Amino acid sequence: MNKGRVEAFSDGVLAIIITIMVLEIKVPHGEQFSDLKGLVPVFLSYVLSFIYLGIYWNNHHHMMHTVKHVSGDILWANLHLLFWLSLIPFATGWMGENNFSAQPMALYGLTLLMAAMAYFILQNRIIKSQGKNGLLKKAIGKDVKGEISPLLYLLGIGLSWVSPWLSGSLYIVVAVLWLIPDRRIEHIVAEQ
Amino acid sequence: MNKGRVEAFSDGVLAIIITIMVLEIKVPHGEQFSDLKGLVPVFLSYVLSFIYLGIYWNNHHHMMHTVKHVSGDILWANLHLLFWLSLIPFATGWMGENNFSAQPMALYGLTLLMAAMAYFILQNRIIKSQGKNGLLKKAIGKDVKGEISPLLYLLGIGLSWVSPWLSGSLYIVVAVLWLIPDRRIEHIVAEQ
Amino acid sequence: MNKGRVEAFSDGVLAIIITIMVLEIKVPHGEQFSDLKGLVPVFLSYVLSFIYLGIYWNNHHHMMHTVKHVSGDILWANLHLLFWLSLIPFATGWMGENNFSAQPMALYGLTLLMAAMAYFILQNRIIKSQGKNGLLKKAIGKDVKGEISPLLYLLGIGLSWVSPWLSGSLYIVVAVLWLIPDRRIEHIVAEQ
Amino acid sequence: MNKGRVEAFSDGVLAIIITIMVLEIKVPHGEQFSDLKGLVPVFLSYVLSFIYLGIYWNNHHHMMHTVKHVSGDILWANLHLLFWLSLIPFATGWMGENNFSAQPMALYGLTLLMAAMAYFILQNRIIKSQGKNGLLKKAIGKDVKGEISPLLYLLGIGLSWVSPWLSGSLYIVVAVLWLIPDRRIEHIVAEQ
Repeated sequence: MNKGRVEAFSDGVLAIIITIMVLEIKVPHGEQFSDLKGLVPVFLSYVLSFIYLGIYWNNHHHMMHTVKHVSGDILWANLHLLFWLSLIPFATGWMGENNFSAQPMALYGLTLLMAAMAYFILQNRIIKSQGKNGLLKKAIGKDVKGEISPLLYLLGIGLSWVSPWLSGSLYIVVAVLWLIPDRRIEHIVAEQ
Repeated sequence: MNKGRVEAFSDGVLAIIITIMVLEIKVPHGEQFSDLKGLVPVFLSYVLSFIYLGIYWNNHHHMMHTVKHVSGDILWANLHLLFWLSLIPFATGWMGENNFSAQPMALYGLTLLMAAMAYFILQNRIIKSQGKNGLLKKAIGKDVKGEISPLLYLLGIGLSWVSPWLSGSLYIVVAVLWLIPDRRIEHIVAEQ
Repeated sequence: MNKGRVEAFSDGVLAIIITIMVLEIKVPHGEQFSDLKGLVPVFLSYVLSFIYLGIYWNNHHHMMHTVKHVSGDILWANLHLLFWLSLIPFATGWMGENNFSAQPMALYGLTLLMAAMAYFILQNRIIKSQGKNGLLKKAIGKDVKGEISPLLYLLGIGLSWVSPWLSGSLYIVVAVLWLIPDRRIEHIVAEQ
Repeated sequence: MNKGRVEAFSDGVLAIIITIMVLEIKVPHGEQFSDLKGLVPVFLSYVLSFIYLGIYWNNHHHMMHTVKHVSGDILWANLHLLFWLSLIPFATGWMGENNFSAQPMALYGLTLLMAAMAYFILQNRIIKSQGKNGLLKKAIGKDVKGEISPLLYLLGIGLSWVSPWLSGSLYIVVAVLWLIPDRRIEHIVAEQ
């Protein structure tokens, strides 16, 4: 089965998720810059989620590079990932509109955690389908980032009751971790 | 006529339908987890409809694999299917916001029924276009699932006045039926 | 210049336009079928506009088949067409929510008229780019439908003050005219 | 790394941004043409932003033509551009709903400025990746438009406190500048 349509569909869903979040930044009634002040947390949440979705799209893009055939279970693991990512606009909106208060911060972390788990499952399915010496397995290597991220999300969720700003910082740290260029897959694919 | 654009357009519409449903899950005003309680039925409806649309995308994906040329009637049969699928977000929203009460449950079933009929028509058009020994006909075989599903939807619609939970269970049963891997088309295509 | 991206972008915009219209069908507050009664005109408008956008997508699909290279003016003629089509959801919504009253009917007709003109311009640009014996020119032939449609729209706009139902009927007539299979381009392309 | 998915994703996001702006043109309650009067500035803002996004899509399309391999930094420079473009619907809405008053005009200009800077960064990344005699560098040449536009935006932002109409005119001038056919890239690519 061809992977082209899986990529096209994932691209479509990710493109819509990323753009739908903008709808949360609602046009204010006043016409002064000061009327935009209330939107600052909504805007900052948007920036963070935009970066997260960019990272997911990027990693998804790379991972699919190693894939040749898409089986039924990979299709569903992919849809499962898209499901959790589709909840990011909601979590982002709740977080932004409540000015990063405790429980919305925890829910945001939970959504990121679930998406990370779904990504992990998808990755494992693909590795399994490629056999022992599969391309993706080599490319991922020890997958330190992939293992640390869920722990940091969990920590962030727990800390949100102590200090929402601390948990927010943790979510930013994970994003920065992934933004640091990680060319493992690129290198392995180039070698082939 | 090339099938690429038909697939791309269908992917686009399905991706948007799936993502538009998330907009029904409106950010609540409070900042406590308890403020999310009212959203539970909306969320559950979303999960069910997401799975249904995933199944449709999956099956559509498989079915189009057997197609080489797309004629005018297949194009319109496809648009007809997309029309009914495009009503799923509305039916989902009505069902979720009314906490799975009788009449919204019936409408949801009706929408699923109409989509199933449209899928059936599209399938028949493709089979017809492929002639007697067509690939899709072989792949579909007896099409037990395809024939049972509409009956279960009908039953669900009827039962919604007796017990909305019963009809809800029936809709879940149909989804599970289709989720069980069905590799008929994959096998037949692989054999070629 | 490659036509692939022009098709992909047009597909994307058309897919979103068609799906955004569903958002006009707002989930009602009550949970009875009778609460849906107010949505009937909105639903009927949606059906008509869905068919129109389906026709445009279909014809666009066919027309682009004859194109090999896309120049700057074709790109802009295409964007111009998408602009008018993007206003259909608004015109549809206004028409549906006002129960097909006179002035919304006229605006709907005007939007269809402008889209038809934009399509005509795009078609001419493509014909011009293909030279005297171009494929599209042959395929279009006398283009009776293309010339009658604007007249019927104009008539519909004028009649909307007399009887909105009459102008509505005219818009339906044009849609039916285009729905009748028109395989000119298919034939000419197949001959090549 | 293949550029196909980058183009597809960018097309998707641009298509959604362009179409989401239509949602700002909200269906009015009355059924008279006079009820549409309040929408005129919203409509005019939509036209201007539609043209701007069309120009971006067009230029993006051309620029990507010269690209063969997409590296990680180009991917992120592209996402960065999409981020600023995704804010255009918000800036457009604020400008339209406040009838082109001073501060919304400044914000609109600022959004255009940031998008222009992001485009410039993306362009530079691509030029760098192509080496000294790269295709894009030749095609761009002196890039007069690319250098004048930010200055005109800056002027427009500054003038918005003096006369919003003047800054509006400047934004229109920049759009017209880019609409004038600019076939540099087309020519250079055709020469190869």
